[in-house]
Amino acid sequence: MNVVVLAGGFGGARMAHGFALLDDVVEPVVMVNTADDLELHGLHISPDLDTVMYTLAGLGNTETGWGVRDETWSATDLLARYGEPTWFRLGDRDLATHIVRTARLRAGASLTEATAELAAALGVRARLLPMTDDRVRTMLRTADGWLDFQDYFVRRHHDDDVAEVRFDGVESARPTDAVIAALESAELVVVAPSNPFVSVAPILALEGVAHALRSGPARVVAVSPIIGGASVRGPAAALLRSLAGERGSAGVARHYSRVQPGLIDVFVIDHADAAEADAVRGAGFTVAVEQTMLAAEADRRALASRLIELA
Amino acid sequence: MNVVVLAGGFGGARMAHGFALLDDVVEPVVMVNTADDLELHGLHISPDLDTVMYTLAGLGNTETGWGVRDETWSATDLLARYGEPTWFRLGDRDLATHIVRTARLRAGASLTEATAELAAALGVRARLLPMTDDRVRTMLRTADGWLDFQDYFVRRHHDDDVAEVRFDGVESARPTDAVIAALESAELVVVAPSNPFVSVAPILALEGVAHALRSGPARVVAVSPIIGGASVRGPAAALLRSLAGERGSAGVARHYSRVQPGLIDVFVIDHADAAEADAVRGAGFTVAVEQTMLAAEADRRALASRLIELA
Repeated sequence: MNVVVLAGGFGGARMAHGFALLDDVVEPVVMVNTADDLELHGLHISPDLDTVMYTLAGLGNTETGWGVRDETWSATDLLARYGEPTWFRLGDRDLATHIVRTARLRAGASLTEATAELAAALGVRARLLPMTDDRVRTMLRTADGWLDFQDYFVRRHHDDDVAEVRFDGVESARPTDAVIAALESAELVVVAPSNPFVSVAPILALEGVAHALRSGPARVVAVSPIIGGASVRGPAAALLRSLAGERGSAGVARHYSRVQPGLIDVFVIDHADAAEADAVRGAGFTVAVEQTMLAAEADRRALASRLIELA
Repeated sequence: MNVVVLAGGFGGARMAHGFALLDDVVEPVVMVNTADDLELHGLHISPDLDTVMYTLAGLGNTETGWGVRDETWSATDLLARYGEPTWFRLGDRDLATHIVRTARLRAGASLTEATAELAAALGVRARLLPMTDDRVRTMLRTADGWLDFQDYFVRRHHDDDVAEVRFDGVESARPTDAVIAALESAELVVVAPSNPFVSVAPILALEGVAHALRSGPARVVAVSPIIGGASVRGPAAALLRSLAGERGSAGVARHYSRVQPGLIDVFVIDHADAAEADAVRGAGFTVAVEQTMLAAEADRRALASRLIELA
């Protein structure tokens, strides 16, 4: 079965992993947000791609939810002595990824090509596709003005109230041919339990992506990133309130139905939020109530299986 | 006193350190070979500059003679998985230096500027000057053809017989203004106990350097890199035989008098080679017999003091 997962980092990686664990029946394509990418120390860093890649390679740091397991932090000591900013923590193993990616990009490879090469080297069989090879950058407007995504997310611990989000470059950026082809041949598209505003929205904002989803044959299933009214991780719940005036999984459903009407067919919420099922239905979706906390591999695999059944 | 040290990596760093330890009376300028530089993983690596810098910063790995002390090796694991060559071992701390240098160079800084910035950040007070900002690369002809320097030196453990050495790019490369100015105002120039063929020769091959040394007011003192007939480290003795048909410290003296006549005033040999003093004199030099094994800081400082007295 051709499955495409639209993914950010944390929740996207866990959901994608579930499908990768079903590789006897599924050839998952993971379409990853790159609007969080940044240049630091002259290196091109793709945090969401890396979180997905490390997770699927079995190298993910399950304690932090980002970076590589068994990591060391020696380089950052010397980076700090050289006066480099170190609030975006880069472990030593992780640095190798950024070094090789940057070298490939400077040698003329596309991000899609560099990603495929890195992922294959780590034994990842799922296909990892950056949403675009062009530069898109998420910016967030706060009381202190417009902030770069990682400035907001990492340096300032997503503590700021966000009044507005924009994706610089998204109008001129194009999804890759591989992205469009994968969407057109998909039988199931899963919107991962990733942040709707800063992980999923940049992918859907690319010209042609939402159209391909609406016009393609795939069932589109979205998994709520909210469990029990709170984000599993990160600022999803906070952004849901400040940007959409909504709360809870039903609020996510209403938000998607408003900004992307007709795009999603099935909306999946956690058992903890079963009471919101009617409200989700009211937003126009078929609703499914599942175990969506994906810390354990078994739960990732089980949810992926269920989503295939739903499709 | 204005002292300039012409330096390769290992012996150059130890000799330069001796002068840096005398910083109440000396403002040493260390003029460093860059013909060993290489690009690896897209990073600009300057092994000799780094060995000097780490040694003067008190960060040198005294066991290996290169790299940083208390080093870790995590990045190289992942570099290997990505199929990158790992015979040139790069520690995690060391990588930070190459990352920052490369970023500065790509941002338009010269190697001289990037070096000054890195060294200052590590608290090095001596002035580190790459011999040139241009690209010069040492190549060695062996039975297997021409090899890059680090291929010969590191990957093949300098086991090959060398029939010829050339410095690609040296005809068009120029010493920096800082190099020429330092040579012109030097009162003492020390040719460090570095390899005459692959560390010192590239510096002297740059247009204007040998001329500035001969026409300037400085006394030029060379320290033999051979003790007891053998290299302290590396292939100096082997290259002395294969390229100059010479042996021992007297052989080094004869080689210098042949290829750079009139450039060196005083030639320093170790007590272990005192019997060669007459032969060194016969090559046309004033000779000094000193303790030239520079493993201990006290010995580095003592030799530096003696060289100042000799000048």
